[in-house]
Amino acid sequence: MFSFDLIKTNNNTRARLGKVHTSHGVIDTPVFMPVGTQATVKAMSPHELEEIGAKIILSNTYHLYLRPGHELVKEAGGLHSFMNWKGSILTDSGGFQVFSLGDLRKITEEGVEFRSHIDGSKHLFTPEKVMEIEMALGPDIAMVFDECVSYPTTHEYAKEAMERTTRWAERCLKAHDREDQVLFGIVQGGLYHDLRAISAQDLVSLDFPGYAVGGLSVGEPKPLMYEVLDSTVPLLPENKPRYLMGVGSPDCLVEGVLRGIDMFDCVLPTRIARNGTVFTKEGKLVIRNAKYKHDFTPLDHHCDCYTCRNFTRAYIRHLFNVNEILGLRLTTIHNLYYLLKLMENIRNAIAADAFLDFREEFYSNYQVNKV
Amino acid sequence: MFSFDLIKTNNNTRARLGKVHTSHGVIDTPVFMPVGTQATVKAMSPHELEEIGAKIILSNTYHLYLRPGHELVKEAGGLHSFMNWKGSILTDSGGFQVFSLGDLRKITEEGVEFRSHIDGSKHLFTPEKVMEIEMALGPDIAMVFDECVSYPTTHEYAKEAMERTTRWAERCLKAHDREDQVLFGIVQGGLYHDLRAISAQDLVSLDFPGYAVGGLSVGEPKPLMYEVLDSTVPLLPENKPRYLMGVGSPDCLVEGVLRGIDMFDCVLPTRIARNGTVFTKEGKLVIRNAKYKHDFTPLDHHCDCYTCRNFTRAYIRHLFNVNEILGLRLTTIHNLYYLLKLMENIRNAIAADAFLDFREEFYSNYQVNKV
Repeated sequence: MFSFDLIKTNNNTRARLGKVHTSHGVIDTPVFMPVGTQATVKAMSPHELEEIGAKIILSNTYHLYLRPGHELVKEAGGLHSFMNWKGSILTDSGGFQVFSLGDLRKITEEGVEFRSHIDGSKHLFTPEKVMEIEMALGPDIAMVFDECVSYPTTHEYAKEAMERTTRWAERCLKAHDREDQVLFGIVQGGLYHDLRAISAQDLVSLDFPGYAVGGLSVGEPKPLMYEVLDSTVPLLPENKPRYLMGVGSPDCLVEGVLRGIDMFDCVLPTRIARNGTVFTKEGKLVIRNAKYKHDFTPLDHHCDCYTCRNFTRAYIRHLFNVNEILGLRLTTIHNLYYLLKLMENIRNAIAADAFLDFREEFYSNYQVNKV
Repeated sequence: MFSFDLIKTNNNTRARLGKVHTSHGVIDTPVFMPVGTQATVKAMSPHELEEIGAKIILSNTYHLYLRPGHELVKEAGGLHSFMNWKGSILTDSGGFQVFSLGDLRKITEEGVEFRSHIDGSKHLFTPEKVMEIEMALGPDIAMVFDECVSYPTTHEYAKEAMERTTRWAERCLKAHDREDQVLFGIVQGGLYHDLRAISAQDLVSLDFPGYAVGGLSVGEPKPLMYEVLDSTVPLLPENKPRYLMGVGSPDCLVEGVLRGIDMFDCVLPTRIARNGTVFTKEGKLVIRNAKYKHDFTPLDHHCDCYTCRNFTRAYIRHLFNVNEILGLRLTTIHNLYYLLKLMENIRNAIAADAFLDFREEFYSNYQVNKV
C-alpha cells in the first residue's frame, strides 16, 4: 500500500509535483514533514497537526528505541496508535543520531556500538537490529541504517562510509519483511560528487521505492549542498520520491524543490519556535526583542494560522518573558504552519508553471540572514 | 452589567444553584474558576478553555502588575483582549501574594510595601493603587485589597488584620469607579468565628455585589475550614454570590457547595497536572508510576475529555518520562475538565434535589487521601 504518482515536472526547472500514497493517506509533494522525535511533535497535539494540514510526520528510531522502547510501542499497536496520529509516519534509522554521539560510539562492519546519551548503557545498532526496531515501530516509511559522515571529512573516509552504507542497505533490504511498510535507501558520499554518483547508482540498482539524500545540512555552506543536489538528484529515478534529510529553513526548501526534491524534514521550525524565533514573510523575527513590547499586531501580517488570527506580538512576547508554555505552543504552531503553507504555495506555483516567479518573489520578501 | 440570580436552594442543605451575569456571558454556579496567573492558564490555550466549558477564569493582579505591567494590559484593551479570552475574568487583589512574600513585605495602615520576587525592586500596594491596577486590567469582577493572615495566628493579630481589611475595603469602594466592573468584598478573621462574624457584618453593611471568604485553605485542617464556612456563610446575603478563595480539591468543592459557596478557584488542578498527578473518579493517580507502563487505558475510565478520548496512560507516562510538553498539556486539560464536570454534576444534583445523594456517591468512589 505505497505508491508515488509523479503528476508534473516544472517546464524549466527540476521542481515537480507528486502524490505519495500510504495506508494512512495521500501526501501532496513537495512536502515538509514536522519532526516528532519522541512520539510527539514538541508542544503540539496530533489534533493541532491535523488542523495546520500536516499529512506526514517523522519520528526518531534512536530516541524511541531508548524510551519508551520499540517493544512497548509495538504492544500499543505501533506508533500511529501509541501517539494517536492518523496521518502517515516516516522513521529515520537512528544513523544520524548514533554517529552524532562522537566518542560514545564505535563503528564496525557489523554495525555501531554506542552508549545511550541518557544513562550511558551500551547498545548495538546493526542493519538487522534497526530493521527489527523500525518494523516494531510500524511507520509507513522506514529508512535504511546508514552512516552519515560529519563535515568536513576526507575523500577516503567518505568513500569508506558510503560503501559501508550501501552494504548496510543491502542487509536492511534482506532483513526487512513488513509488507505494509516501505524502506527508503539513503545516498551518502559527503560533498564528493563522484562518491554521490556511485552511491546513487548502487542504491538505484537495489530498487528502493524511494530515495533520500543524507549527510547534507551538517555544517557545510549552503551553495555546496545545492551543488551536491544538482549533481545527485538527476541520478535518481524520476518515478520515485526523493527526500532531502534534515533540511527545513524556508530558503533551503525552495532551493531543494528547485533541484527536484519531494520530501523534507527538520527540527529547525519547532526548535527555534521554542526559543521565540518565528518565520515571517520578511524573514525571521525574535519575539523577545524589546521593540515588540507594545506591538499589538500578529507575528506575521500575512499569516492566517491560529496564532496570527488570535494573538499579538506583545502578548506572545509577554508569554516568553514569563516562561509560559502557551508562548512556545503559539510560536510552534505558527512556524509549522508557515512551512506547510510555503510548501502549498510552492505546489500551486509548480502546478501553474510559475515556480521560478514564485522563487523570485519569495526572495524579494524573505531576508535569509535577518534575525 | 452584573447580576446574580439565585435559582434554587437545596431543600435540606445550603447548596444553591445560581447564575452570574457579566458582560462576558452567563456563569452557572456553583462554578470552579481555572487560574490564569500570568494572563494564561498554564499550558492551555483560550480555545481549549472554551472547549472544556470554562466560563470564567481568575488572573493575578500581583503577577500582572509586575509583568507585563497593568499599563501595557490597559493599552492592549484590557485583559480579555490581551489574552484573547472571550469569557469572564475575575482578578484577585494581590493581597494573598504580597502577604506570602514574608520578609519581603511590610504592612502599615497605608498599605503594603514589598519587594518583587523577580528582581527585588520596591513597590507599594495601597487599596487605591490596587483599584487603579484592577481597573486597568479590566476584569468583570475585581477583588478588594485585603490582608490574609497565615495559619496559625493569634486572635489579636487576626482581629487587627480583619479590621484593617474592612477599612481597606471602604477605601477600595471609594477608589473604585469603573462602571463595567464589580468589586467583591473579602471576609477575613482567620479561624476565629467571632472575628469572621464581625467581618461579615461590617462588609455586608458596605453592600458589595458579591462576597468572598478569604484566608482559608492556608494550611489548616479541612474540618476547621468547614466549621468557619458553617458559621460564616449564613451571615452573607442570600441574593449575592459567595466565593471561597483558593479552594479546588474535589472533596473541598463538594463540601464548599454543601455550605452554600457559589464560586471557587485554585491552582491545584493545573499545578499537580504539570507534575503528572491527575484526578480520577477513584481519587488521584500519579502517571509516572511504573504500574502504568503497559496500561493502554485512559487516565480516568469515566471521563470523556479530549485526553481520555484520545490517549492512554502508557503514552502519557512516556511523555512525562521524556519531559515532553504534550504530557502536561494532556493532564492539565484532564484535571480542569474533571473539576468543571464535577461542578456540572453538582449543579445537576442540586437541580434534582439530590445533592446529598450525589455527595454520598462521590465519597463512595473518591478516596480523598489516595495518591
